[in-house]
Amino acid sequence: MRAVDIIRAKRDGLVLTADQIGWMVAGASDGSVPDYQLSAWLMAVWLRGMTTDETAALTEAMVDSGVRVDLSTLPGVKVDKHSTGGVGDKTSLVIAPLVAACGVPVPMMSGRGLGHTGGTLDKLEAITGFRTGLSLDEFRAQLADLGCALIGQTRDVAPADRTLYALRDVTATVESLPLICASILSKKVAEGIDALVLDVKVGSGAFMQSERDARALADALVSLAERSGLHVAALLTNMDAPLGRTIGNALEVRECLDVMRGGGPADLVALSLELSALMVWLGMPGSSLDASRDLVRITLASGAAFDRFRAVVERQGGDVRMIDDPQQLPHAAVQRPFPAPRGGFVERLDAGILGRAAVLLGAGRARADDRVDPAVGFDLQATVGDAISVGAPLIVVHARSAADADAVWPMLTEAVRIADQAPAPQPLILDRLGAAR
Amino acid sequence: MRAVDIIRAKRDGLVLTADQIGWMVAGASDGSVPDYQLSAWLMAVWLRGMTTDETAALTEAMVDSGVRVDLSTLPGVKVDKHSTGGVGDKTSLVIAPLVAACGVPVPMMSGRGLGHTGGTLDKLEAITGFRTGLSLDEFRAQLADLGCALIGQTRDVAPADRTLYALRDVTATVESLPLICASILSKKVAEGIDALVLDVKVGSGAFMQSERDARALADALVSLAERSGLHVAALLTNMDAPLGRTIGNALEVRECLDVMRGGGPADLVALSLELSALMVWLGMPGSSLDASRDLVRITLASGAAFDRFRAVVERQGGDVRMIDDPQQLPHAAVQRPFPAPRGGFVERLDAGILGRAAVLLGAGRARADDRVDPAVGFDLQATVGDAISVGAPLIVVHARSAADADAVWPMLTEAVRIADQAPAPQPLILDRLGAAR
Repeated sequence: MRAVDIIRAKRDGLVLTADQIGWMVAGASDGSVPDYQLSAWLMAVWLRGMTTDETAALTEAMVDSGVRVDLSTLPGVKVDKHSTGGVGDKTSLVIAPLVAACGVPVPMMSGRGLGHTGGTLDKLEAITGFRTGLSLDEFRAQLADLGCALIGQTRDVAPADRTLYALRDVTATVESLPLICASILSKKVAEGIDALVLDVKVGSGAFMQSERDARALADALVSLAERSGLHVAALLTNMDAPLGRTIGNALEVRECLDVMRGGGPADLVALSLELSALMVWLGMPGSSLDASRDLVRITLASGAAFDRFRAVVERQGGDVRMIDDPQQLPHAAVQRPFPAPRGGFVERLDAGILGRAAVLLGAGRARADDRVDPAVGFDLQATVGDAISVGAPLIVVHARSAADADAVWPMLTEAVRIADQAPAPQPLILDRLGAAR
Repeated sequence: MRAVDIIRAKRDGLVLTADQIGWMVAGASDGSVPDYQLSAWLMAVWLRGMTTDETAALTEAMVDSGVRVDLSTLPGVKVDKHSTGGVGDKTSLVIAPLVAACGVPVPMMSGRGLGHTGGTLDKLEAITGFRTGLSLDEFRAQLADLGCALIGQTRDVAPADRTLYALRDVTATVESLPLICASILSKKVAEGIDALVLDVKVGSGAFMQSERDARALADALVSLAERSGLHVAALLTNMDAPLGRTIGNALEVRECLDVMRGGGPADLVALSLELSALMVWLGMPGSSLDASRDLVRITLASGAAFDRFRAVVERQGGDVRMIDDPQQLPHAAVQRPFPAPRGGFVERLDAGILGRAAVLLGAGRARADDRVDPAVGFDLQATVGDAISVGAPLIVVHARSAADADAVWPMLTEAVRIADQAPAPQPLILDRLGAAR
């Protein structure tokens, strides 16, 4: 085979064979197909698309480019959750210990934040000492002992995806449905899980801005995950406003601890419970979704999720004093309230703008090698639909310096809209797809 | 500017500004835009196209990536000819001295053969000692003295085109109208010429197989050349069968010498005369095309083109004994006749297949760094429309070895078709475009 022939075929809109796709991906992985041919091929894929068969072959080839983690010696149906990325989207920290406490093992491999969306690993690393880089043996042992481990993708999981993603990022070929699906699912399949719950975000703070695009992504992910042998369910959820009341790594850990202690904002609690219920439902063959909902609610209320999270933090080297006393989590030097510019009802808190503002504060990454500051971010004092008086603190900005706080001020002004009347309430969960439909 | 934004804009079908195009081309030239971004951009251009404005900006940027040869100190309208490439397409060797002998200076920069089409430089180098790598000073001095010089593109002419072409070759982005036009014209504009005659080939041995595609290419080249300030005319000519009776470098030189001595095959003579007449017409303001036709015919018959060619060969270091006695040109070890498989009329001699067979013999290049054998090739004993008896020699194969001749035998069988009746005659010149329309 020759790369140029495979590029030409895709350029001309032909359907590639699994062999051709496998050959290109192997070439990406071992370096035998040079970057300039991979990027021309990626652009042809972006513009010509791929069939479901092609995307499945791409997923399979990316899995085969690295190790497939073997969790078959562990009992139970292994379930993970994947979110397509949002702002204040911190459910993983609640879900993983909660579902594990319900008896369903959760081998969770997460990513770092890039762009305006946060990443689970960055949040966990706000806890001093927390190690996200476990070896696969440590990972398996912890899963056996605690039913749950929270780690980053190891370098030997789907290495072809890393090569291709790095190229996509600099060649304007990120936003392609088949490429996105194969990238997400190859890493999940390689984890060795049996079932997967997807949280597909839609709105200003999401990768997909329109419900139509998000639904297409959810549909494609569900059908591909099923072809890859995973039991799968997906929620389509709103990401026009941040989830919960905090954005920024330590602030989000604190909020998750609130939830695990029985408090926390209603939207974060509701979404964490529903995603957990789907995971338990998939993880306990024969259970009903309603019974799973009851089980996760009771388990959360019992404090078992908190205890399990504390045990995970301890096992992964984190400072449990920060769990027992969230005041010990990192604090930013400057905490300045952003006052409501007028009185009325909060109509909009634009998640996309707030996410980009958080990156500017240092909470996220503009480039993959940027360092993240765990302490900075935003603490929302009110959310969409709340009444507020002019001048009342609407957002507390946690920043490294007054200059940093100044820098994001205009973005906050742009992100906030206050109206005379309360906006019509918007559903958080727009739809459910896959096994649970 | 960022390459990823320019790639994205073209991916989305937007029209790029001259600044954006200039920035990408400069990046190709100085290496600041990496190959993988250039190739993604080229694929986006291939699939989305370019407007005439964009293509003109691309041409201009590629010219500006290198030197623009200054021929303004030389008197006269400087005219060159460019062919899009064919099999047995050897007119340059006749045209350059013929037009120069008519008093119009011909600063001819040519390429090497690649793929199944031949290249003027390879043909000239069949003459022992012939130097195609003159310095620009030598080039100018020879033009002043002899009115004509035949050289290769120097490395400082349109270097960005070299970078982009090398990428296009391995990323299936060669066959794009705007990219082809900019590549051809940037090199011609950089030569410092005033006028250009284009020979756009159509047929099995040409880059464009259909008349519609070839006409689109000719139209685009003519309008872009005019925008670049060149006086331009173009012929659309048939390339289903080889031009003339020889394919292969030394064999083609011999045939051109026949033409310059007043003999040679009718098709080669006719096309050489018409292209020369167009060049003289563009090169002599105020002349008519008919008067130019008379002038080139009389000049060829006078032997002046032959004398001028001999002087050029001598000046460029070639062995003039090969010009005075073509028997001195390189000979292949094996000369084996391919007999007519049946009696009748030659209906087809497929130029594409014969061109590829000639590459297999060693007359051309499968890869840019292949070495060419000047002696090998094909000598056609009959051409399309001729009557032939079964077993009569139809093609004499000039090969390095019997094994080489054996290797091309099945291709010759495939290339030849003999019918009971003479095929309807096909015109050689299909149309004329541009200034001469």
